[in-house]
Amino acid sequence: MNKVFLLHKRPEGKPSLTDFKLIEEGMPEAEDGELLLKSLYVSVDPYLRGRMNDAKSYIPAFQLNMPMQSGIIAEVLTSDSPAFKKGDFVLGNLDWKQYQTCLPNGLQKIEADANNLTPYLGILGMTGLTAYLGLTLLGKPKNHETIVVSGAAGAVGTIVGQIGKLMGCRVVGITGTHEKVSLLQSKFKFDKAINYNAVPNLQQAIHLACHKGVDVYFDNVGGNISDAVLANINKHARIVLCGAIALYNETKPPTGPRIQPTILTKSATMQGFIISDFADKFPEATKQLALWLQEKKLTYSETIVDGFNNIPQAFINLFSGKNEGKMIVKV
Amino acid sequence: MNKVFLLHKRPEGKPSLTDFKLIEEGMPEAEDGELLLKSLYVSVDPYLRGRMNDAKSYIPAFQLNMPMQSGIIAEVLTSDSPAFKKGDFVLGNLDWKQYQTCLPNGLQKIEADANNLTPYLGILGMTGLTAYLGLTLLGKPKNHETIVVSGAAGAVGTIVGQIGKLMGCRVVGITGTHEKVSLLQSKFKFDKAINYNAVPNLQQAIHLACHKGVDVYFDNVGGNISDAVLANINKHARIVLCGAIALYNETKPPTGPRIQPTILTKSATMQGFIISDFADKFPEATKQLALWLQEKKLTYSETIVDGFNNIPQAFINLFSGKNEGKMIVKV
Repeated sequence: MNKVFLLHKRPEGKPSLTDFKLIEEGMPEAEDGELLLKSLYVSVDPYLRGRMNDAKSYIPAFQLNMPMQSGIIAEVLTSDSPAFKKGDFVLGNLDWKQYQTCLPNGLQKIEADANNLTPYLGILGMTGLTAYLGLTLLGKPKNHETIVVSGAAGAVGTIVGQIGKLMGCRVVGITGTHEKVSLLQSKFKFDKAINYNAVPNLQQAIHLACHKGVDVYFDNVGGNISDAVLANINKHARIVLCGAIALYNETKPPTGPRIQPTILTKSATMQGFIISDFADKFPEATKQLALWLQEKKLTYSETIVDGFNNIPQAFINLFSGKNEGKMIVKV
Repeated sequence: MNKVFLLHKRPEGKPSLTDFKLIEEGMPEAEDGELLLKSLYVSVDPYLRGRMNDAKSYIPAFQLNMPMQSGIIAEVLTSDSPAFKKGDFVLGNLDWKQYQTCLPNGLQKIEADANNLTPYLGILGMTGLTAYLGLTLLGKPKNHETIVVSGAAGAVGTIVGQIGKLMGCRVVGITGTHEKVSLLQSKFKFDKAINYNAVPNLQQAIHLACHKGVDVYFDNVGGNISDAVLANINKHARIVLCGAIALYNETKPPTGPRIQPTILTKSATMQGFIISDFADKFPEATKQLALWLQEKKLTYSETIVDGFNNIPQAFINLFSGKNEGKMIVKV
């Protein structure tokens, strides 16, 4: 039998296990032109929360009683396409199913050993591309500038910080535990990390950590943390909106300080970053990331959860920051 | 005797006449290298409200018991500078004084007749430059796109709308009276104007007026009006923050809906526009504005208030929208 996770109901606020439904169905059979795939690694990502709402956004909402989807690395079991053969590894936006059939379009072949696949969901996949392209194209950091990253110990944040260092910047990370602070400063070479749960005044803590002010803010979280960063931006600051995990589970439209006066008086630029807008830049960016990885100028963390049945819980854990780096489920 | 307006106390909320103090002092005498100037026309502008607060911003705060300042057109009475002679007209950021002395640096000579000076405080001055450079450099409107302008009947708004039309866009203005709606649609050729005081649901009214959504939002006001516009932006929208008159008199930091999720999911760009950042573009921009004016492709409105003593009231009236186009005091 084949296990499948459906969207059972739309979450109100923080998602819970009962929003998902595990069903079993018969093994799928590939039709003409299709591949039969076996899921190996499933990426869970904060942005999926938005797709669980019944709201028009930049990607379609998930449908009730239909399979959830995300980035998945799978093994090709059978192929009716000349582009793929049995035993190949592929990456695609696939259903949360143990086995599935699909047409070859949209699948990317991964040229790596079976024990080295997960980077293609992280640093060599959407995560790395998001960090690299968001920071360089929208953040436009210049040598010696100061970059602040929120959600710094997350999948994107850890990479943004390291790329910032490679570009000659001072990098300050904001995160939620003492352990993550240590990790950011040791493993990921951030100049400074701040535990927002442990400082009496975050705005002041950022001020102290960024003695020359904030030139680039790479925002993964939104909410109060971003308010504290914005109070410290320099003239001509660039704010890259990459995520707003602090707001995804709000049941009412969130309110907060109006930021327009700050953006205005600082001649600042705030831009929304959606990775799919930059598809033409993927090949070059992937090449750069792979080179840095090979030169050991970049490193990464993964939190790998075992078992297909645990996909929903792994996803839910993103919202309490239980992951360090990229959260992946090994099927 | 010489009349002078000082900042008497810092306003709490909306400025009032008692925040200013009119004093009389002896006639000034020009020292070596100085000019003696007689003020003719005084510009009053919303941004001056910010300088009345004791807050660090992009321009220094006014000091208590010192003269207020703004853009002023004056006549040269005596000159000890080869660059200016008696009878010349000059524009500068000058004190609210009937007569004053100053060094020639920072003064711009105006080559116009005595009866055609005021455009240099408006359409051929900072106002026109703000509209033109803010719209073209930050708003980047493309042919057939939709531009929404708030504060549309104000000095900057009326010019933004006309330039938008010259660039082949659909232009929708938001303003506060029925008379201003008519004016925008007749004299200034806006495709549509909305009276925010007369519609039950501004967001819906904007939706109806912008059937293809909003590509460029030129924001002069901030606050609830901007919330309603942002709810209608298209993917890749550009939001030019030029002013926030609705917020200048707030006594507490204003709050409202968090806008980051909208900016993010629309891949939008929001930028603060401060005209002094673009000084290198002034000559070219002024040339373009003068050409359009000469070709009668641009027109403008002025609200001219008579009498030096009325400068504070004219300024205060900006915040209740009593002006149509540029507000100027004739000394």
